[in-house]
Amino acid sequence: MRIDVHFTPVGLSAGDLNGRGVVVIDVLRATTTVITALANGAKAVIPAASSEEAVRLTSNLEKDGVLLAGERKSLKIEGFALGNSPREMTPEVVAGKTIVLATTNGTPALVAAQGGDPVLVGAAANITALAKRAREVLEARSELVIICAGRERQFAVEDAYTAGRLVKVVKKGLGKVDLNDSAAAALALTAAYDGWADAFVDSDAARQLDQADLGADVAFCAKPNRFGTVPQYAERRIT
Amino acid sequence: MRIDVHFTPVGLSAGDLNGRGVVVIDVLRATTTVITALANGAKAVIPAASSEEAVRLTSNLEKDGVLLAGERKSLKIEGFALGNSPREMTPEVVAGKTIVLATTNGTPALVAAQGGDPVLVGAAANITALAKRAREVLEARSELVIICAGRERQFAVEDAYTAGRLVKVVKKGLGKVDLNDSAAAALALTAAYDGWADAFVDSDAARQLDQADLGADVAFCAKPNRFGTVPQYAERRIT
Repeated sequence: MRIDVHFTPVGLSAGDLNGRGVVVIDVLRATTTVITALANGAKAVIPAASSEEAVRLTSNLEKDGVLLAGERKSLKIEGFALGNSPREMTPEVVAGKTIVLATTNGTPALVAAQGGDPVLVGAAANITALAKRAREVLEARSELVIICAGRERQFAVEDAYTAGRLVKVVKKGLGKVDLNDSAAAALALTAAYDGWADAFVDSDAARQLDQADLGADVAFCAKPNRFGTVPQYAERRIT
Repeated sequence: MRIDVHFTPVGLSAGDLNGRGVVVIDVLRATTTVITALANGAKAVIPAASSEEAVRLTSNLEKDGVLLAGERKSLKIEGFALGNSPREMTPEVVAGKTIVLATTNGTPALVAAQGGDPVLVGAAANITALAKRAREVLEARSELVIICAGRERQFAVEDAYTAGRLVKVVKKGLGKVDLNDSAAAALALTAAYDGWADAFVDSDAARQLDQADLGADVAFCAKPNRFGTVPQYAERRIT
């Protein structure tokens, strides 16, 4: 058995993931936002690689059930209904809606993961339920691929820590599981922090969110197991 | 003061490093090889981004003082005088020679670091002397950039560990030094391993070298402070 972590989607080609079991993590904030929206009753989330693609995708959908959401430099994109804050994804706002979401790192990583089967959406917010599903995938396929969105094509510590927590639980009791360098390092990182909030608080992403007055999102995203939902991405939509 | 680590050169643009103090690390094996060659009397090492570029660069140099060296998939490139093993860089072979070196990850990372001032070449083999020079750069410039070559555009644990060891020594006693996510994670990694050999032995790179019957290179590269040389890359050559 084998677990591979990728700290960014850079270098993954379209065919690399075909038919392989994949988890995508952008814990600050896109995958937390997706999980929250679906747990709160959204019909689907459609990830877009860019804001332009989000607008294009929206024009092909029934207007009244669709919400455009997304951020650039942490802030809501002008003209979009919602930003990328999980705190915006309340039942009142998202129930029954299809959300087209465009973010800087997370939704491009999801789009890059297309071809995986299944593609699971992970974060602290669903870590226990996620680990259970990921373990089933690992046992069925003898391998698991975990893709961190990272930050502007670079390593992001909050995603790596989340990947490490996932690796730790998924491989527990399985005997020898081969890990690539990133998986081994992610696992090592879990010992370096005193829990989710400690791992997230000094990250570059958290600093940027603080500066954008979105520090409350960091606290939201650092709380584990808010939901038992494990969204799955297939046929261009996450449900 | 600030230290930034990059786990791969991916995403660094030509202008990013202009005039900034840079350390490049590809401990298995390119930067260890460069340090060894220069410590053993080579006149200069010219890094090439590819084997084709190495051949082209060589055709512009005086023939009899030049050695072509390099690897693809760990093995010596056909027709080249030397591979990329530091154990080949003996005084008998390299003294007085200019070596044109092409490797998969390390020399492209060096080429990508052009524009930095200085660009220092680092590995376990020169860690103490390197840390002293890097500390001077940090104190003079208030910042330091450490670029790991990584492995095929992905994170490599042996480079990250070496970067972490460097960060640890360089920032010692300086009070608050800002670290980007990769620098913080590299520093955390140093606590996860029991020294150089332990950090290197299970790496993807070490496994590939073992399979190519080059396991002795891993042991060579894991021994710290073989040399007091800190090579510097400027005007397309390392001296």
